Amino acid sequence: MESRNIRLAVIPGDGIGTEVVTEGLKVLEAVGTKIEPTHYDLGAARYHRTGETLPDSVLQELRGYDAILLGAVGDPSVPPGILERDLLLRLRFEFDHYVNLRPVKLFPGVETPLADTTAEDIDMIVVREGTEGLYAGTGGAMRRGTPHEIATQESLNTAHGVERVVRYAFDKAQSRPRKKLTLVHKTNVLTFAGDLWQRTVNRVAEEYPEVSTDYCHIDAASMFFVTQPGRFDVVVTDNLFGDIITDLGAAIAGGIGLAASGNINPERTAPSMFEPVHGSAPDIAGQGKADPTATILSVAMLLDHLGLSAEAAKVEQAVADDIVERLTGWTGRTTSQIGDDITARVSG
Amino acid sequence: MESRNIRLAVIPGDGIGTEVVTEGLKVLEAVGTKIEPTHYDLGAARYHRTGETLPDSVLQELRGYDAILLGAVGDPSVPPGILERDLLLRLRFEFDHYVNLRPVKLFPGVETPLADTTAEDIDMIVVREGTEGLYAGTGGAMRRGTPHEIATQESLNTAHGVERVVRYAFDKAQSRPRKKLTLVHKTNVLTFAGDLWQRTVNRVAEEYPEVSTDYCHIDAASMFFVTQPGRFDVVVTDNLFGDIITDLGAAIAGGIGLAASGNINPERTAPSMFEPVHGSAPDIAGQGKADPTATILSVAMLLDHLGLSAEAAKVEQAVADDIVERLTGWTGRTTSQIGDDITARVSG
Ligand SMILES: CC(C)[C@H](C(=O)O)[C@@H](O)C(=O)O
Ligand SMILES: CC(C)[C@H](C(=O)O)[C@@H](O)C(=O)O
Repeated sequence: MESRNIRLAVIPGDGIGTEVVTEGLKVLEAVGTKIEPTHYDLGAARYHRTGETLPDSVLQELRGYDAILLGAVGDPSVPPGILERDLLLRLRFEFDHYVNLRPVKLFPGVETPLADTTAEDIDMIVVREGTEGLYAGTGGAMRRGTPHEIATQESLNTAHGVERVVRYAFDKAQSRPRKKLTLVHKTNVLTFAGDLWQRTVNRVAEEYPEVSTDYCHIDAASMFFVTQPGRFDVVVTDNLFGDIITDLGAAIAGGIGLAASGNINPERTAPSMFEPVHGSAPDIAGQGKADPTATILSVAMLLDHLGLSAEAAKVEQAVADDIVERLTGWTGRTTSQIGDDITARVSG
Repeated sequence: MESRNIRLAVIPGDGIGTEVVTEGLKVLEAVGTKIEPTHYDLGAARYHRTGETLPDSVLQELRGYDAILLGAVGDPSVPPGILERDLLLRLRFEFDHYVNLRPVKLFPGVETPLADTTAEDIDMIVVREGTEGLYAGTGGAMRRGTPHEIATQESLNTAHGVERVVRYAFDKAQSRPRKKLTLVHKTNVLTFAGDLWQRTVNRVAEEYPEVSTDYCHIDAASMFFVTQPGRFDVVVTDNLFGDIITDLGAAIAGGIGLAASGNINPERTAPSMFEPVHGSAPDIAGQGKADPTATILSVAMLLDHLGLSAEAAKVEQAVADDIVERLTGWTGRTTSQIGDDITARVSG
């Protein structure tokens, strides 16, 4: 039986986004998927041309795809926060990407900034909540610009929102050899939200007797990421703590050039979106200097999400092999050379 | 002229707090200060005995001291958050400790978990706001324990609160050779608070033409602490980001056993409070295993705050010398042996 083509919306975005997405698509085509990509020019250029970040009509159209591949958004010419909130975060919220899945895995051969640390020590997955917390955007300012200004931000957490991501994290932990789940929060200060998270983890834990759970404050967790990364298997945490800890995770696992992510809607009521953790890096844009590996690993997550696990494994293996090659001093490749080399491996 | 004695309130607290404070006091006495310490038994034991964390009468009494030395608070027998909020955070708030000063400095000879990093690469000071932000404690829960629960936390930021800590940070930067100040925040998501912080830094910067300023998102900063710590000189940030980044700072600078802090009231309308960054570590309490160095370095900050800069320098030097000694394999000392050795150096 012929399976239908995968309908993929591609949002290259800004800066190096375009460059890395090109390589991601190369690999995706080479791995033998029937894929039908449609490009969307959302990002700084469109914003300047039309004032639009994400028109409602485009949002509706995007809803019809099987998945979204995103490069990066953000440009110094646009006031900070506009593209981030009105495009990237809006997609995460509208498509209910409540699981932001971010593996923190040191590939053999990759240099970590941590001394005495090997690939066995860093192999965890962070399940970051993607639709609540301080990212809700609520808050405000009063008497702005005066000596009496006050500015507030609100963290909104719901039983519904916390429970579904905690359940996802338990499932993930259950499927891994170590079966360990760590809640990262700051329950001693953020007592209302912390209480909700901790109670939810305790309650859901009863349904997963094989999974061992523990708890770590975000400050201590940041320390342990550096001093004892091996203590983490699956980490579940809120939107902001997840943001921080996954950049730290990227750093210890060899850098932002390798960090992949999936913004997942597990119920598939809307397309999930895959993107490298890195930003648009305007300083190196257009120079062929960006490492497309994070995007290619995000493509592997995309394949996995669409049920193409053999293809996903093939892409991951190709990246792993390419990385080992880098060890032997094979550096200085351009963005597209790296993409070509990995493409050759998946087609071979 | 005889100067009057320094009146010092001592709060050993819980767990290893008592052990490390004993050593801090030894050093303080040996360095030749006229010090008159009074102990306060605040912490878990008193809470269990009387239900009190910080009675108003004690708070009033504490107000009369020149400074406070605190060990650590927190014990598993007390529900999480109680001692932290009603004792530690209450002291910071009531005594308007709006500057939480946390040096991140790698002493020569100390092992850092970062590869290829030496003492020159890690020498910064984090100026953490201490009285606002998400630590305000505002927020609440509705329909608690039901599937419709919502829990909120609020970050409160005022022009008054932000400006005073930013000014302090600029002064600090101005006094250091590199004269560089980095604001760490998350302006692209926490737009209201971020806008207040960024505008305040921009405005105050005009009064400090010699200080160069830059900005870093908290997620990127966490990464750079590990990959390029040398890019930071003085960091100014809010209460929660400061909490996270200073634990990470402690990790890269050789661990929590060496991280000192001062909760400063720069206007001296109430006593400042000095404490190691580490917690009460109930798992190793009472075994002589705790490293008192962080407390001894906090004592140096206390001396400096009281204008005894020669004594402060002497204590810091004694610690630096002791640390170099550790290099030669001199490990396995107990808490009080380390305290004795450093004491011998300052008296010698
Ligand atoms: C660009 C920014 C809004 C975003 C976030 O904070 O989630 C980014 O840092 C990320 O981690 O994907
Ligand atoms: C104990 C806790 C409330 C405290 C904080 O969050 O400020 C601690 O982590 C610190 O950094 O001093």
